[in-house]
Amino acid sequence: MIDPGIRPQLGIIGGLGPLASADFYFKLTRMTEALSDSEHVPAVILSVPQLPDRTEAILGNHDGPLAPLQAAVSTLNALGVACIAMPCNTAHHWYGQLAADSRAEIIHIGDAVVTEIRRSLNGSRVANLATRGTLVSGFYQDRIAAAGFDLCLPASAEFQERVDSAIALVKGGSIADAATETERALHLAQLAGADAAVLGCTELSVVAASLNDTNRLIVFDSNAALARACLTRLGFGVQEARGLLTASRLPGQDRLPWRATQQAL
Amino acid sequence: MIDPGIRPQLGIIGGLGPLASADFYFKLTRMTEALSDSEHVPAVILSVPQLPDRTEAILGNHDGPLAPLQAAVSTLNALGVACIAMPCNTAHHWYGQLAADSRAEIIHIGDAVVTEIRRSLNGSRVANLATRGTLVSGFYQDRIAAAGFDLCLPASAEFQERVDSAIALVKGGSIADAATETERALHLAQLAGADAAVLGCTELSVVAASLNDTNRLIVFDSNAALARACLTRLGFGVQEARGLLTASRLPGQDRLPWRATQQAL
Repeated sequence: MIDPGIRPQLGIIGGLGPLASADFYFKLTRMTEALSDSEHVPAVILSVPQLPDRTEAILGNHDGPLAPLQAAVSTLNALGVACIAMPCNTAHHWYGQLAADSRAEIIHIGDAVVTEIRRSLNGSRVANLATRGTLVSGFYQDRIAAAGFDLCLPASAEFQERVDSAIALVKGGSIADAATETERALHLAQLAGADAAVLGCTELSVVAASLNDTNRLIVFDSNAALARACLTRLGFGVQEARGLLTASRLPGQDRLPWRATQQAL
Repeated sequence: MIDPGIRPQLGIIGGLGPLASADFYFKLTRMTEALSDSEHVPAVILSVPQLPDRTEAILGNHDGPLAPLQAAVSTLNALGVACIAMPCNTAHHWYGQLAADSRAEIIHIGDAVVTEIRRSLNGSRVANLATRGTLVSGFYQDRIAAAGFDLCLPASAEFQERVDSAIALVKGGSIADAATETERALHLAQLAGADAAVLGCTELSVVAASLNDTNRLIVFDSNAALARACLTRLGFGVQEARGLLTASRLPGQDRLPWRATQQAL
């Protein structure tokens, strides 16, 4: 179906959201050991931002996103990819059904993150900054516990409110303000005893390089972890991503469009 | 062939290079008037970094990239896209043959740039920071002249050397150093009398937001122009891209891998 000269090796289900997908594409590229174009991985990104909201489906107990996700997996298989990545944590709620119908291996973002945690963490208490859908789905809790770490769940309601706010701000395009909200959530996690925190929503991966002053808290970026896992799986050399792009933190660069202004520090 | 629920509207021939394509995807997203995922344009990016070098082909007078480009166009048409963008200036050397075989309209990056120049430029002398392949191909010269502007060609050999160096640095992953080289080239263009300059290589688009002190020289970004043209063509609302990501300019962030060190300011 596709010319062998341009067959992609990696299929990416993107658009969930599109900024998180662009961030994944950037990190995948920056982490590939390469000095010229031809050393990079041939890939295809199917950007499907029209998918129904994943968290809304999980909390509302329906499978609206499943059929379009299956269609995306099917399309990528038809294009001949060797493996598939889905830089959207919440969509992994349906991982089992998607993987069952896919010839190409779907790299699980939670597995990729736990691989990074095992490599780098001396302590044991890990907080997760994720959508309510991802938390209800439970796949991070399972994997973190299976790896011998403890999940750190901050008791204050403010923690999840800040995380939800940060995610919405990224989806709305206000990256610098999202970084501020994320820093607040990380601080609350640290106060609750976390040794490390996972950016378990790829919208938060967009602000990862812009985070100031995490006070020695180790932060794991699910997009970066997934990119590393894909490159390793496909046999590409991996380097640390140098000179990652950061959002401008100058005042006035972003607008706080809604109730986040009432939560501003 | 593709499920109508996930059919992409925009097809993107990417990977030329992959960082430039990630930059295009970022700018397309940031420039879309949208607060939620579902308001963004469904798209597919075919990242084909394995394509033969475009400048080498043009200067060597052969058509190595043409067949794979045709295969990419054909694949995107099969996926049902309404229009196609190719965020690689040099590849537009083969625009005519590609467009002839494509049901989907291919948006020409040079036309998109000239549209921006007409909108924004009061002066008349425009320099072009582009690959030698793009310059030999001549499509910018034709379009700039047809629009009533004058092409400003700096006489010094250093100008094109700096441009070549900047492009290679981006492809090699040294973004901050590429920004430095680009600033030097822009300065030389201004000394030669340019009122404006086009970043006529999408690798240079990657450094656009990191450029300091352009001394009132107006800089047109071919990736941003192409993104705007695509959104307009497909009926999406367009906004200025807020809070664009910038490369860190801290010393030590990037390495200067080769002879660029001898040209350092």
